Amino acid sequence: MAVVVSLGGERREKPRANMDRLSALVADDLKRVNDIILARMHSPVALIPQLAGHLIAAGGKRLRPMLTLASAHLCGYRGDSHLKLSAAVEFIHTATLLHDDVVDESDLRRGMASANAVWGNKPSVLVGDFLFSRAFQLMVEEGSLPVLGILSHASAVIAEGEVQQLITSNDTETGETAYLDVIRAKTAQLFAAAAHIGALLAGRPKVEEEALDSYGLNLGIAFQLVDDVLDYSARQIELGKTIGDDFREGKITLPVILTFRRGDEEERRFWRRTLEALDQNPGDLSHAQMLMERHGALRDALERARHYGAIARDALGIFPDSEAKRALTEVVDFCIERAY
Amino acid sequence: MAVVVSLGGERREKPRANMDRLSALVADDLKRVNDIILARMHSPVALIPQLAGHLIAAGGKRLRPMLTLASAHLCGYRGDSHLKLSAAVEFIHTATLLHDDVVDESDLRRGMASANAVWGNKPSVLVGDFLFSRAFQLMVEEGSLPVLGILSHASAVIAEGEVQQLITSNDTETGETAYLDVIRAKTAQLFAAAAHIGALLAGRPKVEEEALDSYGLNLGIAFQLVDDVLDYSARQIELGKTIGDDFREGKITLPVILTFRRGDEEERRFWRRTLEALDQNPGDLSHAQMLMERHGALRDALERARHYGAIARDALGIFPDSEAKRALTEVVDFCIERAY
Repeated sequence: MAVVVSLGGERREKPRANMDRLSALVADDLKRVNDIILARMHSPVALIPQLAGHLIAAGGKRLRPMLTLASAHLCGYRGDSHLKLSAAVEFIHTATLLHDDVVDESDLRRGMASANAVWGNKPSVLVGDFLFSRAFQLMVEEGSLPVLGILSHASAVIAEGEVQQLITSNDTETGETAYLDVIRAKTAQLFAAAAHIGALLAGRPKVEEEALDSYGLNLGIAFQLVDDVLDYSARQIELGKTIGDDFREGKITLPVILTFRRGDEEERRFWRRTLEALDQNPGDLSHAQMLMERHGALRDALERARHYGAIARDALGIFPDSEAKRALTEVVDFCIERAY
Repeated sequence: MAVVVSLGGERREKPRANMDRLSALVADDLKRVNDIILARMHSPVALIPQLAGHLIAAGGKRLRPMLTLASAHLCGYRGDSHLKLSAAVEFIHTATLLHDDVVDESDLRRGMASANAVWGNKPSVLVGDFLFSRAFQLMVEEGSLPVLGILSHASAVIAEGEVQQLITSNDTETGETAYLDVIRAKTAQLFAAAAHIGALLAGRPKVEEEALDSYGLNLGIAFQLVDDVLDYSARQIELGKTIGDDFREGKITLPVILTFRRGDEEERRFWRRTLEALDQNPGDLSHAQMLMERHGALRDALERARHYGAIARDALGIFPDSEAKRALTEVVDFCIERAY
């Protein structure tokens, strides 16, 4: 049985932030992006759109492509290039999800059977490669070398982050800095790139490019921190999602790092047994949650998320008030408040 | 025991073609390409250069990057862009090898333990992604959108070919056309792109771009046909390499397709048992070789390879005589004659 972990008293007291403003802002564009996604995941090899469609139709939030669309809005961009580039961002994201699920041996993704669970690892690897190539084709069609530079760099950094995560997996000695390096690379880099290219397309000054890059990077860090908290949180159960995936895989996330460092030797033996040796018994997940509660680890991990969220919000400070700015600000609130 | 399969009487009667002329032509350039490869597979995540270096140092022939270098020579290119682009071609090739070995569950590559056998599938997938991203970073640095277009297209086609191969794997009904589609995509497309970009860099007329693309494409088809013959050939054993990898994996290559179609029902039952059901006993590989000998399948598969080799040679016809042209012509001879 899962322990209910409380994350502070403010829960449900004010209206919850959501993505409605962002969704409304980019609704028309996103429809066109979805059309591009469907058209361009096509291949004469039928398994490719089948497998890619399984994941893409399973409906992620399209958060990353929406960031590209919204940042283009924010910067007053008037062309059409943001549409294909937004699709390219989603393709890169989908490719990394496909490869992630192979690497993590995940059976579930977005509440459905993962592609590797349905079709096996092999086509998941290859369809990931296909989508990755397609992303670059879309970028080439738009003809922007700076965008190609940003997204090829982001892709290399994501792969580095994933390898680094693999190395530190199951190592309870992992510190907060190493953890942050991993999530900055594997998650936040693509958020940063997605937001950055809106400013680039609009030909805005360097300082605005940097602001949107920083916004995306810090939002991405906050997003991943909250994700890692939710994997141990009662809130996740309320949302109808399972918890404990990270625990079962022995992933060393910030809630574990804080609890391990604040705990005594007996507690550390527990973490070494469950996360290093992966020797897990019924009740271990609940015990892990209880230890996290004892040391305030989820609460403090969310405090860290709020810190990065604040940086993201302030990065937008140089932009004049607009619907796009309000939408991007609310995304930060939403990404953090979904933990409560 | 392997049956000695004879492939015609002309063996060893004339001096064997080799790659010496090509190697001499590009020696200086290739040294610089190797330096770029070593420098650019670097990452602060040490496992990445370790794993990539294992494969890259294991010393492929560097055939694909040499095609880029030689075609740049042929077209009188005078800059330095061919060096990084040649490295990019090798990175894409290495990335596909890493993913191939995961997909094929191969334990050996170039006579050494494969990366997936040493480090496992997970880092092989991710380091492949890293090298693929690096390839695009190198291309962006050279700033040629047409080259980016050619290589991103080639990468998508390669992935399609690999998925198609996966689908037709273990299906003895696969015909020669479907087989050709697969090898054209998974192998020949990168040969074509590698040769093509030399002409593109030099700003040569479209007809020369197309000639080098056709040269590479047909050379690549011939190369793969010979590879597939060698996997059943006594010549491979003479070269100190093992045979039968394709047989054990149930890959449907041209020697199998020809033998299956020319055989009687009892023979087809043999192929279905061994390659579809993968129910294999000692002696089956020798029996397969005997059937291929009976139906002249290896001989005729090589005849097909010579056909594509001839097209490749003729594609170079529009270029005036030069050391580069002689070198590229000899590569065709070498790729085919290595079967004898």
